[in-house]
Order: sequence, then C-alpha cells, then structure tokens
Amino acid sequence: MMKKDNICALASASGMGAISVIRVSGPHAIAICDQLFISVKAGKSLLDQKSHTIHLGTFMDNGHLIDEVLISVFKGPNSYTGENVVEISCHGSTFIQQQILQSLIKKGCRTAEPGEFTFRAFMNGKMDLSQAEAVADLISSSNEKSHDLALSQMRGGFSLEIQSLREELIKFASLIELELDFSTEDVEFADRSQLQGLINKLKKVLRRLIDSFALGNVLKNGIPVAIVGEPNVGKSTLLNALLNENRAIVSEIAGTTRDTVEDEIIIEGISFRFIDTAGIRDSQDAIESIGIEKTFEKIKLAKVVLYLFDAARVSLEKVHQEMKKLEVHTEGKQLIALANKVDQGDINQIEATFGDIHNILFISAKHKENVVRLKKMLTKKVKQGIVTNDDVIVSNSRHFEALSHALSFVVKVQEGLDAGISGDLLAMDIRQSLFHLGEITGEITTDDLLDSIFHDFCIGK
Amino acid sequence: MMKKDNICALASASGMGAISVIRVSGPHAIAICDQLFISVKAGKSLLDQKSHTIHLGTFMDNGHLIDEVLISVFKGPNSYTGENVVEISCHGSTFIQQQILQSLIKKGCRTAEPGEFTFRAFMNGKMDLSQAEAVADLISSSNEKSHDLALSQMRGGFSLEIQSLREELIKFASLIELELDFSTEDVEFADRSQLQGLINKLKKVLRRLIDSFALGNVLKNGIPVAIVGEPNVGKSTLLNALLNENRAIVSEIAGTTRDTVEDEIIIEGISFRFIDTAGIRDSQDAIESIGIEKTFEKIKLAKVVLYLFDAARVSLEKVHQEMKKLEVHTEGKQLIALANKVDQGDINQIEATFGDIHNILFISAKHKENVVRLKKMLTKKVKQGIVTNDDVIVSNSRHFEALSHALSFVVKVQEGLDAGISGDLLAMDIRQSLFHLGEITGEITTDDLLDSIFHDFCIGK
Repeated sequence: MMKKDNICALASASGMGAISVIRVSGPHAIAICDQLFISVKAGKSLLDQKSHTIHLGTFMDNGHLIDEVLISVFKGPNSYTGENVVEISCHGSTFIQQQILQSLIKKGCRTAEPGEFTFRAFMNGKMDLSQAEAVADLISSSNEKSHDLALSQMRGGFSLEIQSLREELIKFASLIELELDFSTEDVEFADRSQLQGLINKLKKVLRRLIDSFALGNVLKNGIPVAIVGEPNVGKSTLLNALLNENRAIVSEIAGTTRDTVEDEIIIEGISFRFIDTAGIRDSQDAIESIGIEKTFEKIKLAKVVLYLFDAARVSLEKVHQEMKKLEVHTEGKQLIALANKVDQGDINQIEATFGDIHNILFISAKHKENVVRLKKMLTKKVKQGIVTNDDVIVSNSRHFEALSHALSFVVKVQEGLDAGISGDLLAMDIRQSLFHLGEITGEITTDDLLDSIFHDFCIGK
Repeated sequence: MMKKDNICALASASGMGAISVIRVSGPHAIAICDQLFISVKAGKSLLDQKSHTIHLGTFMDNGHLIDEVLISVFKGPNSYTGENVVEISCHGSTFIQQQILQSLIKKGCRTAEPGEFTFRAFMNGKMDLSQAEAVADLISSSNEKSHDLALSQMRGGFSLEIQSLREELIKFASLIELELDFSTEDVEFADRSQLQGLINKLKKVLRRLIDSFALGNVLKNGIPVAIVGEPNVGKSTLLNALLNENRAIVSEIAGTTRDTVEDEIIIEGISFRFIDTAGIRDSQDAIESIGIEKTFEKIKLAKVVLYLFDAARVSLEKVHQEMKKLEVHTEGKQLIALANKVDQGDINQIEATFGDIHNILFISAKHKENVVRLKKMLTKKVKQGIVTNDDVIVSNSRHFEALSHALSFVVKVQEGLDAGISGDLLAMDIRQSLFHLGEITGEITTDDLLDSIFHDFCIGK
C-alpha cells in the first residue's frame, strides 16, 4: 500500500503571491533537491545539513537559473510525513512554481495525489486517521467553532479515549477466545463482571460521543436558519442588517480576503447559514405566504426559524393564527418571533399588543434596532448546548457512523452477557465492536475508505 | 523615512491551500512571535534560537489555541529585509490566517503596506532600487523570457556597471568642483582626456542599454501580433490552431493552474499577444477589408503582422494589391504572408502562383498544417534580436527614461568638453548625469518615486 517514491506539490495556495512553498517528501527528497540547489555558501550540500534548518541559494535546472530560493530541510522521522521532507520557498509566480515542479519531476519526483502528504503521515504513524481527517477540516474551517473542533480533533480529540477502551476490549476478546480453546474444560479466563463494567463504560462514552454529533454537525457546517413571513414584512432588510456589520470585520485585515459565503453570518464564532436566501432576497420568488408548502420545506431544513411580521400593520389574531400553523412544523427547532417595523407604529402599543408572545423580539430591521439582541438570542441556545470547551464533540459523519455501529454491537454484547450466551457468540459481537472502533482511528482500514478520505484533500497537503 | 516598527502580512497567495506563510519583520519580530508561540520542547524560547532554524509548536492567543505551526527564525541582517524576520507556516485556512494576523497586531505589529518588506530590504541596503523593482517583475512574470529578464535584474543586472561608471564620474565631478575653488589660479585637477574617455565609455554603455529596451519591452510584455485579412479567410481558425496546442502544456502539472491570458501564446518562452483578438474571433466586428482605417490602427500596435488570404480562391493580383497597401503601414514590422486553405485547392498550383511572395508560408489552419513552421518563423526574428543570453537587457520603462536622460546630459558634457566650456558649466551637466544614473539604482530617490515603485507590489512582499 505504502509507496516509497518521492512526491512533490505546491503546498501554498495557488495563484500569485509574494512567495510560494513547494513541498517534497520521500526517501530521496533531500538528495533530489540537492541536485537542483546551489547554496550561496560554496560547496555546501543539503545532505550534510541538520534537520529544521533553512538555506539560501539558487534553484537551477540544467544550468538554467530558475529562482533564488530558501530551502527548509526536515529529516525523517521528524517531519510532517515522517519521511525526509524539503520545503522550497520561492518567489510567488506561477511560472516559477511550474518550473520548479517540472525540474523536480525530471529528477524523479512524482506529482503528489490529493492528501498524499497527510496520507503518508498517517501510514508512518505520525497521526491516526481521525487526526488526518481533521487536517482537511481545519484547512476548510471558516469560523471559530469549526476551527476549534477540527484543531481539537487534529490534536488527538477523542482518539485516545477510543483507543484505550478498544485496547481493554481487545484483552477481553483474547481471553474469551482463549476460553474457546479450552471449551471442554468450562473455564472462564475473562472476568464477566469486569467485562460488564467495561461494556457499561463503553456504552456511556459512545452515547456521549454520538449525542455530540448533532451539535458538532451544526458547528462544523453552520446552523441553518429560515426567515419566514408574508411579503413586505422586511425579510431581506433583516438579512442585510444581519449580514452587513459582519462583513466589515472580515475585511478589516488587508491581504486576508476570504471567499465570502453569501448569506452566512458568523456570530461569536458560530456560523449561521440562511436557507435559500436567494429566495428571501428576491421577494417575488420567496416565501409568499406563511401557509404554503414551500415554506414548510424550508423550515424542515432549519434549526432556527425566524418568524417575521409587520407589527405596525398586522393584528394579534393573525399572528396567533400564523404561529399556530408554524408550531406544528417547528417542533424541536428554535422559533423566534420578530415584531418588525416598530419604528412605523406606536412602540408602546405594539409591545402591549404582542408582548405575551413567547420568544418575541421587537425590532426595526431598517434602523438596525435590536439586531444586536437578535444575534445574542441566536447564539444563546447554541452555546447552551456546549457544556464546557473541553467537551469532546464529534463533527465527522464517518465517525458518527462508526460510533453508532460500534454502539449497536456493544449493546449486543451487553444483551449476550445478560442472557449468558456462549463465549463464541460473545466473541463475535466483541470483534464487531472492535472493528468499528478501529475504523475511527484507522487501526482498521480498507483501500476504499482511505481513498474516499484522502481524495477530499487538496493537493499539497 | 525608515520606520522602525514591526510589520506583518500574509506572504503566500491568498485563499485556501495546504499551508500559508505569514511574514513578520522588524526589531521585535522574534520577541513578538515568542509571546504567541509555545514550542513542543518545553521551555524553548524563540529568542535563544539560531538564525535560519525552524521550530514546531503551537500558536496561542491569550490561552486560546490558534494552530499548530512551524516558525522559521531569521536574524537581521541575514534576512530578506535585513531586520529580524519570522515566517509562520500555518495550516492554509483563511480563518487561521486572519486569527494569526490579528494576534500579531494585538501584540504591536502593523499590517505591512504593499511592497514594504522589499522596501525595507532596499532601505537596509540588501538590494538596490532596480533589484527591488525586479522582485515585482519576477512575481508577475508569466513566461520564460520575462522571468529570465527579471531574475537577471534582481541578481544585479546592469546595476553594477552603472554604479561603477557613476562612481568614476563622481570623482571627476569632485575634481572639477575643486578646480572652481581655485578658479583664480587656473589649475586643472580633472584630466580632460581621461574625462573624455569616461564620457565615451558612458555614451556607449548607455546607448547599448537604451537600445536594448525595445527588445526588453517586448520580451516583458509580449510581442503584439495582428492577424489581418478579408472575412472568412480563416483568421479565427488560425488563432485557435495557434492557441490550442499551447494550452495543453500549461495544464500538464496539476495544482499550478495559472490565470490564462486569453489569446496569448507562449512559444519557446516568448509570449505573443494577439491584438484585439475579440475582434478577430468575431468576424462580424473584425477587420472587414484590408483597406479600412481600423485595420491600420491595429497594425500600428503590432510588431508582427500576419497577412492571411484564401489561397484557394483569391488571385495573385488581388494579393499583390493588398500587400502593397499593407507595406506602407508595416515598415519596421515583421510582415508574414500566409496562404491559407491549401487543403481546398491544388497545392502545387497554389505554390506556383504565390511562391514568389516574400516571407510566405502555405498553411491549412483548419488541419493545423504548417502551424508549427509558422510558430518557428514567429520566434526566429525575435531570437535574432538577442545576441547572447548574457547580454543585459533593460525592460523597465523607468530605467529607460532615466538612462535616456542621463545620456542626454552625458552628450552635453561631451559637447562642453569639445567647446572647451568652463568648469562650472561642465560640473552642472555632470551633476545632472549623475542624478539620473543614481535614480536607476536608488542612490537618488524621492518619496514620490519610492511610493510609485513599491505601491505596485503585492502585500506580503
């Protein structure tokens, strides 16, 4: 499975910048680069250099000067991949990037496949599979919470806990399988009450992790929010009021322009995505009436529903009617009522009329009144879900699946123990639990699994 | 003029990649980063590390983990800017880039202005002004010739020659000015025949450099080519035939996709730009007849004119007529006649009919016949202009201007010497020559000049 050749790729973002970094990894990475590099210090060879040192010189291809570069040398196993690694820091022209990559390929390197550097790190035991997956999540994380989740997972996350429980379970599996060899003698090497204790612990841990996925998933992918309400109640004005402030923060630091996702706002590190906001913006094509099927479909996808009405023009009866219809569809979701356009009516009267509605906020989207309070309200419930920052949260659907499978077999083991089934049947269920636990950290892998994980990576990682 | 604060910026291309590099420069660059960095080795401080070493650890902001990073330490003056420099290699998420930059700014860094790192390198004597300018050219170079030009200039180019001639001239200027102090005594400290020799040498060097600009300019910016001919002679087919093959080469290496300039082809490292090719492609709006004014305007901008005609359908007489009209407008340009659609007629007869035309090629754009020969023909004349690769070529219009001004005053000095004018007048012209020579390498600068040069840079360089 493991290829022992030398790979290279652009590691920094593609396009023009002040500098670019090209990464080379493999047994001959240093030797290959040494052939293409002339140090400013005469006679200096990269092969003689210490790990984690940087060298100034020229990158030459067959006597032709390509660029002045800085070369960083990392000697395996103390490198990202665990192999010898060289990072070439060159001027950030795409032409130079191409020339350097071509030169490396001529000297025997191969263009790295997506994720191949991290794949090698995994194969060389530098990180387990769930950590490798977190690298890709970390790179694509665009808000604080998804960033923190990915980083915590990259640095170990729940891997260690899973691994140590798995090892304990392996011991029991071995003992039970040993019993099978002595089946005629009716011995019990594996202490059933100890096994019972481990199974209980496993169930608890797995349930906790599985339960955390719902939260992990929204933190990673953003919390879907639907704004519903009749035409002209101010849906697009509200959306703009929510979006605008945020953008100013993003563009504060020059040179770090990010691909702004339309209609996504990040509040206190949590991303909120507005569902089908193209529709919301374009009133013609939007949620035309609170009663129609289209609206309910949108609500289905949301975790939070903002019900917006024109407080200066609508009756309490109408609002009650609409909210009653909505309530059927918003079970398990956050429903926030927003009395908009308070600037266009008598605020005291509006508050007196609608004040009894649960979870209501009086706003003026146009004048950005109470928009900050709405933002606070949006984050409040999400934050309540996070007990402490140390709590481990599962955000990867592959892990969620493996954990769920593992739990179902752990439950079977439990049932088997309760029913006093024979050791061989018990052993089978334990093996299945072990298999699914092993899938998470990569003790158990298949080529298909690895392919599907690493092909989502960008080239150069 | 020189600011002694600490600056930071993203140095790698913006956007998502496997890794990003953030550059920090200034007297406290290492100390600032040390406050934000925790090495994997307990108790290790960046302040105690040698220059040109790399350190693995975590980037922390106020107890909050931002990323696992590699930190490269460069101690001034042995760094790009000549100051203390730290390069932070982090995961390539825009969120992480932002967080790290924000942390650095909180600790007292300032976002670098465009080109400020290179500006500091210039101010600290790490490179002269023409070398600094070449850095920007190098980054934006998209073909071999412009790359080679920029690189040669970045590594010194004609700076040294100019500098040494300038120093010689300074000596004469001082001597002549010394004479003025002793004007009553009628002495001559400056040997007039030696000065004459230096002036001759300067004239020769300056003329050579000025003459090279025409070539340098086309190599840097590409060689403008106009395709002219009547409608339906195959102009857009020819353009496609020229473009297609080339694109395949560019996309050969994954991860290095460059912003392809529409209708630019690079042949043997030289870029050819097709003038107003939107017009050429869209036959309706194009050069409709060889005689109209519009065509002549396009020809004015071109260095090479491809005159295309339908060899299967047009008479020799008509071609002679059209070429006669063209010749008036193509003086000093390359005119190549292309007998197209040879596949649609009797090739022998076509060759017999049109064979006597100067610089003619028989092609079939549709079947890509002789397109390779056309490409060779295109590069041939350009290559003839380049005597050797070592020859210094001026490609920067600012340098061209300064050289031209310097030459005009050198000529004045020459005339003054011939006329035997007084020392004080001679000294004035010499000072003017010195001024313009000094502008090239940056001995003479103004804030406006520096601003205009460095503000064309990207941030992070």
